[in-house]
Amino acid sequence: MTATLLPDTMPPVSAEAAGVLPSGIGELVAYGVHRPGLIPLWVGEGDRPTPDFIGAAAERAIRDGATFYTRMLGIAPLREALAAYVTGLYGDEADPGRFFVTVGGMHAFHTAIRVAAEPGDEIVIPSPTWSNFFGAIAALGARAVPVPMQFEPEAGWSLDIARIAAAVTPRTRAIVVNSPANPTGWTATRSDLEALLAIARRHRLWIIADEIYGRFSFDPDHAALGRAPSIRDVWQPGDRDRVLFVQTFSKNWAMTGWRIGWLEGPAALAPAVEGLILYGTSGVATFLQHAAVTALREGEALVAAQIAQAREGRAIVCDALRSVPGVQLPYPPGAFYAFPRVPAEPDARLLAMRLVDEANVGLAPGTAFGPGGEGFLRLCFARSADDLREAMRRMVPALMPR
Amino acid sequence: MTATLLPDTMPPVSAEAAGVLPSGIGELVAYGVHRPGLIPLWVGEGDRPTPDFIGAAAERAIRDGATFYTRMLGIAPLREALAAYVTGLYGDEADPGRFFVTVGGMHAFHTAIRVAAEPGDEIVIPSPTWSNFFGAIAALGARAVPVPMQFEPEAGWSLDIARIAAAVTPRTRAIVVNSPANPTGWTATRSDLEALLAIARRHRLWIIADEIYGRFSFDPDHAALGRAPSIRDVWQPGDRDRVLFVQTFSKNWAMTGWRIGWLEGPAALAPAVEGLILYGTSGVATFLQHAAVTALREGEALVAAQIAQAREGRAIVCDALRSVPGVQLPYPPGAFYAFPRVPAEPDARLLAMRLVDEANVGLAPGTAFGPGGEGFLRLCFARSADDLREAMRRMVPALMPR
Repeated sequence: MTATLLPDTMPPVSAEAAGVLPSGIGELVAYGVHRPGLIPLWVGEGDRPTPDFIGAAAERAIRDGATFYTRMLGIAPLREALAAYVTGLYGDEADPGRFFVTVGGMHAFHTAIRVAAEPGDEIVIPSPTWSNFFGAIAALGARAVPVPMQFEPEAGWSLDIARIAAAVTPRTRAIVVNSPANPTGWTATRSDLEALLAIARRHRLWIIADEIYGRFSFDPDHAALGRAPSIRDVWQPGDRDRVLFVQTFSKNWAMTGWRIGWLEGPAALAPAVEGLILYGTSGVATFLQHAAVTALREGEALVAAQIAQAREGRAIVCDALRSVPGVQLPYPPGAFYAFPRVPAEPDARLLAMRLVDEANVGLAPGTAFGPGGEGFLRLCFARSADDLREAMRRMVPALMPR
Repeated sequence: MTATLLPDTMPPVSAEAAGVLPSGIGELVAYGVHRPGLIPLWVGEGDRPTPDFIGAAAERAIRDGATFYTRMLGIAPLREALAAYVTGLYGDEADPGRFFVTVGGMHAFHTAIRVAAEPGDEIVIPSPTWSNFFGAIAALGARAVPVPMQFEPEAGWSLDIARIAAAVTPRTRAIVVNSPANPTGWTATRSDLEALLAIARRHRLWIIADEIYGRFSFDPDHAALGRAPSIRDVWQPGDRDRVLFVQTFSKNWAMTGWRIGWLEGPAALAPAVEGLILYGTSGVATFLQHAAVTALREGEALVAAQIAQAREGRAIVCDALRSVPGVQLPYPPGAFYAFPRVPAEPDARLLAMRLVDEANVGLAPGTAFGPGGEGFLRLCFARSADDLREAMRRMVPALMPR
């Protein structure tokens, strides 16, 4: 709000609204979005429109008149399909009563922190991390406590559990665990997850688990499972009541623009979540939910294609950028972002702008992702190989030492 | 949450989530929704599915691939169409930069109070009023200050401006003005609106104007304009910066289930609202927004049909209920609810349950709408004449003195 002149006739604006954090990605998008021919790799979405079989399900539901007020927590067929999906993927018997449909993954996170935290409370987050976590926590009047992760140019990113434990105070209410992680690709090991759960148990904290990139795991050891390790793999009795999963249809099923996701948590939270949804958004259009059911039931080939595309994109991008002298880019084990460090230009914001100007490629500056992101750039490789090859053809010369 | 046993493994839940208000309508819906043949008049929606021309616009946009991330404040064609609609209806030149697309009218209100108020702040609301206002304010940690309106069995509802003024304290941040009003049908006069604006001016308060039933005005004096008086009709220079309009596509265009509405306010709020939306819901699906553009551009015949249906429904319901000895029901001047008082049964909740049992008709108890609603019932008459006649045929005997 500081950038905007507020008329003096305007009544006071709440501190949360007045102090709303700008999006560090948004600044770059505004800078470059109108350039003809720009290849946009700054946001976390591919170039594939939602496949027809999903769109057709929405169209059928509209024609069938599924246009009335809906259930606040989601229609029963979707909650059942979500439980079946989770049960199938994780081998963990999930109850439909634990699934609450939201307006995308962002709204799932917003709802999770409203359940877990009050204004003034603290939420611990390994960083660099998805910038919207910080924005959502600040907009609630709570305080994000970032805990920088360690970066080694060859070994990649790692989490120091002792630093997480040391960040917990009496005001801490939750730890955000995003694995595989945006933007780093860091993927928690089973022992990381066990240690995080132990901290949550000890201090009566929520784990807010963002495993939305769980299917995008490039470690051969995970290939057999078809997913990265999950906190479900290591939870002990009682832990199920300590975890809020935030999830989305955006990534796996190419539905970023549909604004549908889900929160999974203890079924006993249903009345609270129902109220927060009733008084916030009043649910997700029924016909969108029918499309989501179809995505879950018929979408495995699509998910496989998305993963294959990301795997190819990862190789194209990482091989090209690693060839640039000085650029530090360990292969990310998960998610679909490359997060190179360019020591020759420590100001990532300036570098991202220069890449718009000189290469006509849009990247996000690492500074957008909180402490630890300085000097890094993020780019999304969930995109056609042709686009990515062209982006690298343009970018590599611009990054070469001069 | 009190009704649910929380497992002792569960970490603490925020006060806002734990104290989320139950919906007084929801209790009745749960009581009666599974009765075969029940005529549901408890919620504010008609029985007309969204017309095909609106659904077809969404379908076209899905097929055209409008399935990617969207603009947080809404796509330009929708913001322009909203400005044109408002300009046409109110003769008030509206700038597209003042329009912010939301997930329905509920989300517009949620966003408005997040702009205007912080936890602990007060918001003044004439009551009885839409129950979700209370729920949304409580979920934010703010405090609703209801100011009961006056009811006269023949003259109907009126607002005592002096009581509104007296309710303002140093913590007050906003006054909610819902006209035509849910559930009472009360419709503000120009002098009411002038007086409310004067209070807002004097104390630097926001007016949160809910004029979503503005097209549903049955006063012959308003027929020429095609709408009820609006706060726009009387605002003075500077007042434009004091008003947040919450609006929806639900009622006029039979789109309750689409979850799309808008907030209108000073363009200078755009960065704040953009942030609140980014970190809350991340916008409304682009293809839904295209359908909304079509509704605005091609929907006037539909709106006229909706109004005509409500006018007929109002006569059917009010004539029938007014024939019951003891029932007090002045004709509501606006909106599409009858709000009868039944002095023979002061417990409206019990009476609504009895009407489910004896008449198989679903009504909402007046207690759901805050102080002043005790002893009243709300029913929605925006429904087919046949359904309403049948509902009255069943209800009238059940209400007759015994």
